[in-house]
Amino acid sequence: MKGLDGAAEWESLHALLPSLTGASVVDLGCGFGWFCRWATEGGANAVLGIDLSANMLARAEAATSSPTITYQQHDLDTLELPAGAFQLAYSSLTLHYLADIERLFRTVHGSLTSGGHFVFSIEHPIFTAPAEPQFVTDVTGHTTWPVDGYLAEGPRTTNWLVPGVVKQHRAIGTYVNALVAAGFVIDALVEWGPSPEQVLEVPEWTVETERPPFLLVAARRP
Amino acid sequence: MKGLDGAAEWESLHALLPSLTGASVVDLGCGFGWFCRWATEGGANAVLGIDLSANMLARAEAATSSPTITYQQHDLDTLELPAGAFQLAYSSLTLHYLADIERLFRTVHGSLTSGGHFVFSIEHPIFTAPAEPQFVTDVTGHTTWPVDGYLAEGPRTTNWLVPGVVKQHRAIGTYVNALVAAGFVIDALVEWGPSPEQVLEVPEWTVETERPPFLLVAARRP
Repeated sequence: MKGLDGAAEWESLHALLPSLTGASVVDLGCGFGWFCRWATEGGANAVLGIDLSANMLARAEAATSSPTITYQQHDLDTLELPAGAFQLAYSSLTLHYLADIERLFRTVHGSLTSGGHFVFSIEHPIFTAPAEPQFVTDVTGHTTWPVDGYLAEGPRTTNWLVPGVVKQHRAIGTYVNALVAAGFVIDALVEWGPSPEQVLEVPEWTVETERPPFLLVAARRP
Repeated sequence: MKGLDGAAEWESLHALLPSLTGASVVDLGCGFGWFCRWATEGGANAVLGIDLSANMLARAEAATSSPTITYQQHDLDTLELPAGAFQLAYSSLTLHYLADIERLFRTVHGSLTSGGHFVFSIEHPIFTAPAEPQFVTDVTGHTTWPVDGYLAEGPRTTNWLVPGVVKQHRAIGTYVNALVAAGFVIDALVEWGPSPEQVLEVPEWTVETERPPFLLVAARRP
């Protein structure tokens, strides 16, 4: 169990985060609570971890006795949050499962203090678009990622970890415009791929440099 | 010669523009001057059209006698503009040829009034990335766009119109982050593809719905 450091994109996501000292933080899709614990160790004053999975939350709760952290089970598609309560809303590889991103972005915006940050990662839209999301190698040995349906937003069913997982494919512009519509200012878009050092360490990631697997976004409530 | 209306993405780009009444406008890569004339007819007070091509500028000048429009020959990679002079900077399908986008974005930012708009289109990064930018149809008849090298930014040589044209491929995030670094606020990202009506009218555009050919951006100097 490598926790946050086991995620290849963590260093880049970390670089987008504001100072957590004394901050109130909400983690949308907190899973096993790795980020919640990291935020607490980084000086956050209060951390709320939210996930749909009772199993994950049970493991998250078992892993900490910090009074700073609260875990709650909620569906992010119907989540309500207190107004002006957080300096940081964070989400790692979760939001591409949500059916109604506009609603969540409005909810998050309302839950942040003025100047509060919203930092999240999703599977990159180039990654989620294809009907057959697998690299293709032609007879010359040339490997490409076969994009189709990029502008046809909606559910994609894949068989990652368990069969029949449904992701919601959206264009990058849809995420950006929904953030702007909710009142956010865009601070950064990072289309993440493995660094040369990471590729040296994990050679099978070489192909991942051909198209970004993840999109990292930093936005701010002005 | 259909002018602006001959460009499939014009309606979407138009929708991003502010009111031009009384505005000072600069068009970066004005070509034959279609947008400059349209802006003048739309009420702009002064329009500066800039292009590298003397031939295009000669045709642009021959097509108008409006005292509102001034055409100038400049290389956008070394362009200087007066400070706080424009309410709108516009550019259509030009900026993906520039070597130094950060410099141009700073120049444009400095040339806008507070509240001024920067609206531009480029070839979409999914479109410019591939080493072989052509749709691929497999044995089952399934057509995809073969993305590779998306994160390997830099020149791409293609043979569109004339052989050996060099475009500069950059990720979407690179454009967005360069705008933010220059001081802009992002208002909209539109990943453009043909509408169902356009596909009915021009059936060979069906395949263009699989990946966006153009990226339209609206930004603002706060």
